[in-house]
Amino acid sequence: MAGSKVADAPGYHGGKLDAARRLFPDAPEPWIDLSTGINPIPYQIGEIPTEAWTRLPQADDLAALENAARGAYGPGPGADVIAAPGTQAIIQWLPRIFPVRRVGILGHTYGEHAECWRAAGAEVVAAHSLADFAGCDAGVVVNPNNPDGRLIDPAELARAAQTLAAQGGLLVVDEAFMDVMPPGMSLIPDLPAGAIVMRSFGKAYGLAGLRLGFAVATGSLGEGLRAAMGPWAVSGPAIEIGRRALVDRDWLTAATARLGDESRQLDHLLTEAGFTLVGGTPLFRLAECGDAAMWFRKLGRAGILTRPFPTKPSVLRFGIPSDRRGWARLETALEPTPALF
Amino acid sequence: MAGSKVADAPGYHGGKLDAARRLFPDAPEPWIDLSTGINPIPYQIGEIPTEAWTRLPQADDLAALENAARGAYGPGPGADVIAAPGTQAIIQWLPRIFPVRRVGILGHTYGEHAECWRAAGAEVVAAHSLADFAGCDAGVVVNPNNPDGRLIDPAELARAAQTLAAQGGLLVVDEAFMDVMPPGMSLIPDLPAGAIVMRSFGKAYGLAGLRLGFAVATGSLGEGLRAAMGPWAVSGPAIEIGRRALVDRDWLTAATARLGDESRQLDHLLTEAGFTLVGGTPLFRLAECGDAAMWFRKLGRAGILTRPFPTKPSVLRFGIPSDRRGWARLETALEPTPALF
Repeated sequence: MAGSKVADAPGYHGGKLDAARRLFPDAPEPWIDLSTGINPIPYQIGEIPTEAWTRLPQADDLAALENAARGAYGPGPGADVIAAPGTQAIIQWLPRIFPVRRVGILGHTYGEHAECWRAAGAEVVAAHSLADFAGCDAGVVVNPNNPDGRLIDPAELARAAQTLAAQGGLLVVDEAFMDVMPPGMSLIPDLPAGAIVMRSFGKAYGLAGLRLGFAVATGSLGEGLRAAMGPWAVSGPAIEIGRRALVDRDWLTAATARLGDESRQLDHLLTEAGFTLVGGTPLFRLAECGDAAMWFRKLGRAGILTRPFPTKPSVLRFGIPSDRRGWARLETALEPTPALF
Repeated sequence: MAGSKVADAPGYHGGKLDAARRLFPDAPEPWIDLSTGINPIPYQIGEIPTEAWTRLPQADDLAALENAARGAYGPGPGADVIAAPGTQAIIQWLPRIFPVRRVGILGHTYGEHAECWRAAGAEVVAAHSLADFAGCDAGVVVNPNNPDGRLIDPAELARAAQTLAAQGGLLVVDEAFMDVMPPGMSLIPDLPAGAIVMRSFGKAYGLAGLRLGFAVATGSLGEGLRAAMGPWAVSGPAIEIGRRALVDRDWLTAATARLGDESRQLDHLLTEAGFTLVGGTPLFRLAECGDAAMWFRKLGRAGILTRPFPTKPSVLRFGIPSDRRGWARLETALEPTPALF
């Protein structure tokens, strides 16, 4: 299968356009990358002052960024908000700061959590519900989940955190896609003891190359994470753009509304093409089809990159096209062709 | 002492203009920051393609950056060159990848090495020569040293690495300021087994806010460091600018010549003012004076920030002013005043 080289590579992520170009050398340019869950219409970069590039980031500027994140995410006064060069940097460090024997990871989800806990020597068990965290020293929930959009009520997560904390355990909640979800679903405003929540900046704001993310945590866990990041973890441009964007509530409201409309439009196209919608968020859709691998190749030859999952060969994840031309090319590529029937 | 609030803060670094403004509220703006060893004339940022901001950094682009670094630093084929969001990120991770019982750190040097090894539980011993690494599981050398510029021949470092490696130990060489030194002084081209070398991008290229640095290492140490960085550690703009700058040898040659001239000009001013030169590199000078704390305050009131050292109260480190106005203000501030004599 031509698609297998991309899809089955260890640690495969969406967004590997370079690999896709090698796999489909005859595909038309420009590629339409629907393999990620990144907002295709980014927050405006605007002017970056020269000093943001040239100077070491100042403590005051970092504090302003973290205050902007605090305003956006709404933690209580007892929780620390720690900026990082992307949530991936937090995922890499967490197993070193909170070493465990056994970690439960809920459902089919973002693969880097399991990778990083395993690399630190933890046994990783697949949890099918929060109850399966029993016997684990830590539990990981991506909420809403990537790739299926499963959303767990924060009250339920708080109970899971309490159960884990009673045995000295930790609940890790990765809210990478929470910015575009309905209000009231984040665990941050009532963060229980023994829980840490991560927020991604690059996805909802469409600036994945900037590398900016946050952890919200209390007590020694927050202190440990802040110490691990060290001084100057976040770049000057990321501080500058992040502090502007995170106080711009109108932009996020408008972006969320647009993504809601467009994800419904995507559902319509996929359903028409014979896919069954499995779930998603306003930033991506997971769709099922008898021959998803065939669709991955067909779309790839048309210069449209989707996200396959080696362990779930019947599904593909689709991001949102960025413009009319992208929508038109996707619509054309999803039309039935004689070769298919 | 007014200066003590800045100088004695734990983990104090240069470049804390925000703290300096609070300490000297009446100082004229703009501040002239001579407290770092960062090139005051940065490499041109140029055009950053939108995709560098919006997309996850591509593996091919990261490989191109690391190849550019390979060309600039000249390691042999057996060594891996690993990009990081600043060398500080490498310093933070190293004690977790190569845990030791006891680490020797050579001389009065950049404080973050000791901080990070201690945070990982290692005993830190002050080494006065490479021979003092005997009995240590790792030795750390900043070469050329910050702040005094002491430069150790790579053949001598290679012997120290061999001695350490014979007992399973590691030599860490931080070449943060090596770009502007005479050729032949880097350990990278003949990297011994059991040694890791770090290179900073932001200092010589004047782009400290970009957060870009590299480690050069072999075998499992290089593999461990690459795994620890994870995917997308380096931002899109850093990849873009770094890969351009690191192949631009003419720029570095010209910058090194200019910094050489200007650091000699700085020596002249400092000597005239009664300082004794202790050492330095083309990016900074370390100068001694009976009352360095008085000079720190006097320069601070004139809006010129220098770098004091809590444990070495008789010295100040000076970076290079960026322009004519900076030179003129420094010259004026260094002139004797009636209050002084």
